[in-house]
Amino acid sequence: MADPRGHAADREALGGSSLHLVGVGDVSKRILLGRKLRSSQLGETLLSKRIALPVFASDALSSVAYAPDEIFIMLSLAGVSAYTMSWQVGLAVAVMMTAVIASYRQTVHAYPSGGGDYEVAKVNLGPTAGTTVASALLVDYVLTVAVSISAAAHYASSGLGALQGHETVLAVLLIGLLAALNLRGVRESGLYLAVPTYLFMASVLGMCAYGLFRLAQGTLPRAESAGLEILEAPGYDGELTTVALLLLLARAFSSGCAALTGVEAISNGVPAFRKPKSANAATTLALLGAIAVTMMMSVIVLAQQMDVRMVDPFQFDRLVDGAGNPVAEQHALLAQIARGVFEGFPPGFYLVVMITGVVLTLAANTAFNGFPVLGSILAEDGYLPKALGSRGDRLAYSNGIVFLGGMSVALVIAFDAQVTRLIQLYIVGVFVSFTLSQLGMVRHWTRNLSLTKDAAERRRMHRSRAINAIGMSMTGAVLVVVLITKFTYGAWITVLVMGFFFLVMRRVHHHYEEVALELAVDEEDRVMPTRVHAIVLVSKLHKPTLRALAFAKATRPNVLEAVYVDTDRVATQQLVRAWDERDFDVPLKVLHSPYREVTRPIVEYAQAIRRASPRGVVAVYIPEYVVGRWWEQLLHNQSALRLKGRLLFAPGVMVTSVPYQLESSQVARERVAREQDRVKAGDLRRGRVVDEDEGRQVRR
Amino acid sequence: MADPRGHAADREALGGSSLHLVGVGDVSKRILLGRKLRSSQLGETLLSKRIALPVFASDALSSVAYAPDEIFIMLSLAGVSAYTMSWQVGLAVAVMMTAVIASYRQTVHAYPSGGGDYEVAKVNLGPTAGTTVASALLVDYVLTVAVSISAAAHYASSGLGALQGHETVLAVLLIGLLAALNLRGVRESGLYLAVPTYLFMASVLGMCAYGLFRLAQGTLPRAESAGLEILEAPGYDGELTTVALLLLLARAFSSGCAALTGVEAISNGVPAFRKPKSANAATTLALLGAIAVTMMMSVIVLAQQMDVRMVDPFQFDRLVDGAGNPVAEQHALLAQIARGVFEGFPPGFYLVVMITGVVLTLAANTAFNGFPVLGSILAEDGYLPKALGSRGDRLAYSNGIVFLGGMSVALVIAFDAQVTRLIQLYIVGVFVSFTLSQLGMVRHWTRNLSLTKDAAERRRMHRSRAINAIGMSMTGAVLVVVLITKFTYGAWITVLVMGFFFLVMRRVHHHYEEVALELAVDEEDRVMPTRVHAIVLVSKLHKPTLRALAFAKATRPNVLEAVYVDTDRVATQQLVRAWDERDFDVPLKVLHSPYREVTRPIVEYAQAIRRASPRGVVAVYIPEYVVGRWWEQLLHNQSALRLKGRLLFAPGVMVTSVPYQLESSQVARERVAREQDRVKAGDLRRGRVVDEDEGRQVRR
Repeated sequence: MADPRGHAADREALGGSSLHLVGVGDVSKRILLGRKLRSSQLGETLLSKRIALPVFASDALSSVAYAPDEIFIMLSLAGVSAYTMSWQVGLAVAVMMTAVIASYRQTVHAYPSGGGDYEVAKVNLGPTAGTTVASALLVDYVLTVAVSISAAAHYASSGLGALQGHETVLAVLLIGLLAALNLRGVRESGLYLAVPTYLFMASVLGMCAYGLFRLAQGTLPRAESAGLEILEAPGYDGELTTVALLLLLARAFSSGCAALTGVEAISNGVPAFRKPKSANAATTLALLGAIAVTMMMSVIVLAQQMDVRMVDPFQFDRLVDGAGNPVAEQHALLAQIARGVFEGFPPGFYLVVMITGVVLTLAANTAFNGFPVLGSILAEDGYLPKALGSRGDRLAYSNGIVFLGGMSVALVIAFDAQVTRLIQLYIVGVFVSFTLSQLGMVRHWTRNLSLTKDAAERRRMHRSRAINAIGMSMTGAVLVVVLITKFTYGAWITVLVMGFFFLVMRRVHHHYEEVALELAVDEEDRVMPTRVHAIVLVSKLHKPTLRALAFAKATRPNVLEAVYVDTDRVATQQLVRAWDERDFDVPLKVLHSPYREVTRPIVEYAQAIRRASPRGVVAVYIPEYVVGRWWEQLLHNQSALRLKGRLLFAPGVMVTSVPYQLESSQVARERVAREQDRVKAGDLRRGRVVDEDEGRQVRR
Repeated sequence: MADPRGHAADREALGGSSLHLVGVGDVSKRILLGRKLRSSQLGETLLSKRIALPVFASDALSSVAYAPDEIFIMLSLAGVSAYTMSWQVGLAVAVMMTAVIASYRQTVHAYPSGGGDYEVAKVNLGPTAGTTVASALLVDYVLTVAVSISAAAHYASSGLGALQGHETVLAVLLIGLLAALNLRGVRESGLYLAVPTYLFMASVLGMCAYGLFRLAQGTLPRAESAGLEILEAPGYDGELTTVALLLLLARAFSSGCAALTGVEAISNGVPAFRKPKSANAATTLALLGAIAVTMMMSVIVLAQQMDVRMVDPFQFDRLVDGAGNPVAEQHALLAQIARGVFEGFPPGFYLVVMITGVVLTLAANTAFNGFPVLGSILAEDGYLPKALGSRGDRLAYSNGIVFLGGMSVALVIAFDAQVTRLIQLYIVGVFVSFTLSQLGMVRHWTRNLSLTKDAAERRRMHRSRAINAIGMSMTGAVLVVVLITKFTYGAWITVLVMGFFFLVMRRVHHHYEEVALELAVDEEDRVMPTRVHAIVLVSKLHKPTLRALAFAKATRPNVLEAVYVDTDRVATQQLVRAWDERDFDVPLKVLHSPYREVTRPIVEYAQAIRRASPRGVVAVYIPEYVVGRWWEQLLHNQSALRLKGRLLFAPGVMVTSVPYQLESSQVARERVAREQDRVKAGDLRRGRVVDEDEGRQVRR
């Protein structure tokens, strides 16, 4: 059918995506081979180590802003005297960190595809372990947002006194802002992540270096809280038994292990690295580990030397001044150290505090990026609705972001934005995925060893397996410690939610498997229908109807009828007259509808045709208007939609929509084009980045 | 394609709606002629006058529960002395009532189709007047719910002291209950409406008769509030000027006119009456008027004789006891009269109060019935989305009910369930539609007079026109009075909302007209596409795909290809291998998708085909799963839905859904069948009632 606007509209149909008017052969070749620019763009857009470090490091490095604090807070239960053990606890955490980093260096070599812990567990330990890790990771993303943003809010209030006491509101607003930005589609660029992260590293490491220098000089000042006294918690007063002391150290250690969160991010992001991908990722991991350990140990040493005093913010009455009066507030370690080290130089203090808040917010943003990506991987494996697996589905992405935002806001409100409380929930999930993933790696090497004869190769594998085995034993031990020390303090919530996610994913997977079974092909399915009985639905005699008639006629069915539902005698007579006048060669069938229903008579008629000829097929052609604005959509096609929904249940009936594009549809067409080219959360980390010149998205 | 379950499924497809397995000829005759039982069921299900009276009267009669109260409350501004004028005000309202009833008796004769005020105004005065009346009626429905339910809540608290002070909560709960019942689909039966309404008439009229008898005997007791004193409102103390007195009487009169609401209900319901429809409706109207006037005047006389004292509940401090202390509460007139007349016989009091509350609730229910019916009429005329015009669209009905419930709950909360306040908003809309409808009737008779020569006929028309002219002048005058006396007290809100509805309806209508213009047929539209290029989308090799292939093949297109989007190299290779093994005679085309998108490559491919052959048409066949449960729906077809949405914007492309019914789709099929046979709000009043034996719906 000739549409005078056809050509022009085609050319504009997808915005910039069809650059030239080309023949089918040309286009299909182009589609089959992919766009020409693709390989040349590749090199420019993948991440160098220099840029990859800040892109993936914000989560892991930012934990120095709260993990050392938690060590001091836990030790404070037994009073200031326990602080002497802080550096030992810190050292234990640093050893853990080294082991975990070493383990993940093996993973990035073995799994360069970026599946991360989930892929490792699934491939090597089976679907149950995979689903368990996935549940843990989903919970982790929520807690990363809640913990990082709560900490960021506290840093903001350390810098800006006016915010003091409004940390929860501030945290909720920050999460809302992040969710909104990600819903809108923020273009993450390496530069925009690199500047604050490098600034953070520089200022924190610089502060520590200057502090240690002053310590060596003997001019290190005392912290603002140095003059305060800590009252021991009930049960911790007096001499501690060995068991109680060990338990206290274990609790402090497992809280300190919060420093390990975010290390696994690089293992998910290998595809985004430049070649050699795995080697570069492994180097970046080592660098990340070195920086994280240096920062954490420096902070712990400085804090102890400056006589910092911290208690659980829910037990503030245990922190008293010389006269025995409780104090009103306490600041984070980094803030206290910065204020001391940079005394007389306020810009130094403000820089550290502000940049820490920014990097914590970036860390939360990594969760907003990672959550939909993990969702899409799980969807591809059939554990979540398949639609989540398609990058194009904005709705699926949006639901993920809204879900993540909502859950973390709920946590922040429930725990009053108190990092010390949220940490109790955090570590369980992290260590579940660490442990299962290392166990999977051990299996991986064992299997590969049985396949290789090459001695050098086998030696390398033996070494890797040893590293992963050590990592697994250590993370497994910590998992047990964490479960014991934190279960009643909140970890049970994590376990519960993980269980819920686990069951949902199992149920979804079970459904897909059942459907696959029901749909498996057998020989009978190749029988072709003997005849096609086409009916074109007529509601009025206008262009869409004529187009549907023409299209239906073009398919040359065995029978072709136009069908009209009579709900109003006068209108029916008018239509019949108009039909006869225009002298169509298609008969018009009028279905009487005594109750003025439209759907039912058509469905019944289609079913009756099919019953009369069970080996034939009924083709129902529905003319549809295509409009551009949401409210216009409400004004049209509702009956067509309902009818299509009902006809789906009739066997042997297929339904054809014949669209007629009204002028206003151009609005929607442009919206779709904009939408398709928009950046989605997580693109950068998956190596799917935007080339600034072309405005087109590229993937390895 | 042979489907082993095909036959059985067909038979069950629509529940009880296909009773026998019949051939096409048989079925289509049955559909064309309508069901055989229809005409015989008709007589039994239409309403006799005996049943029609209570069905349509609850709204009009229930206003005796609050309209007289408002007269006393308004007069109380000038102190108890003004109460002597209450019967004159009541008489004026009664005269208005008579005039309005007489006018509507003409309407039911002239418009037996039941279009009511909207149809009369639209036909005789044009679309602007019609839309104005429609806006007024929409607002009226909301206020009918708010006022009736607020009054019902106050009667409930008069009977049950425990509810005192919780009227707003109770009113909100009642509205929620009504909305829920109507969403669920309540079967209104004549009997279920007749019993309480007749009981209400009997108990109120009986109470009045007994009260008047005791008055004649000189044994009529004083009301519970008789001992109280009323302080004049500021501005009304001292001697009133004539203007101030007239204004006071006007305000009391216009509040009393609340008694007239609901009279027009019968004019909307003529089709539901037995033959002769119009005569029966007119008789019922006269009866209704007589009962309403009798009730109202008796209540006013008794209230004055019993020395009832009432003030505006927002000025409670104006009602004081002998010692000058304000009282805590006041009861409605009917409650006070019942307590007095039936002193020493509590069951009498409780019967009156309870049955009044029930009938007020039924009155609110009429709005829940009328609102979707009016919506469907407006939709048919193109003033609201067309989908509302289809009885089958449960969603449209639901939206109407939720909207009505939400709006009335908002009003009840905003005005604290105070009838006196809500009345200020109520009357404007009622009199707008009264006046415009009477004006329309005058036009109607004038036009008909010019067409008729018969003398007797002309005499009747002249008489009718005179009655409608009187009605119009009186309601017009009252409208002016109401606007003057109530505008600043809340009527401005009504005017504002009416204006909003008016604009929305105009905008919608304008859109439909524009679209109709754009879609008007010209000669060019009959060109038939020269060739059909069919592509069948393949995601997996399973039954739905095979069915889609078979159906597409049956249409014998010029070109037939299967199309697969390659997002994963391994899966693609597997599919290609399986395709070759099964030795299909359809070529498989693989579209490469570097960004793992599914939608865009297909849309681009379809557009490219169309561009290469602009006179051809592209037929895209999409295999779809049909599942039964909502969560299953989330797990399937999301990509198909998105793709269909995008393809609609591509000119020259038609999209065919080939459904494959999974076993679980039976669940949904049964739900649809239940849904279709369910009673919808407003059915009874439109003469669309359910025959108990058949369970099938019938219409005139």
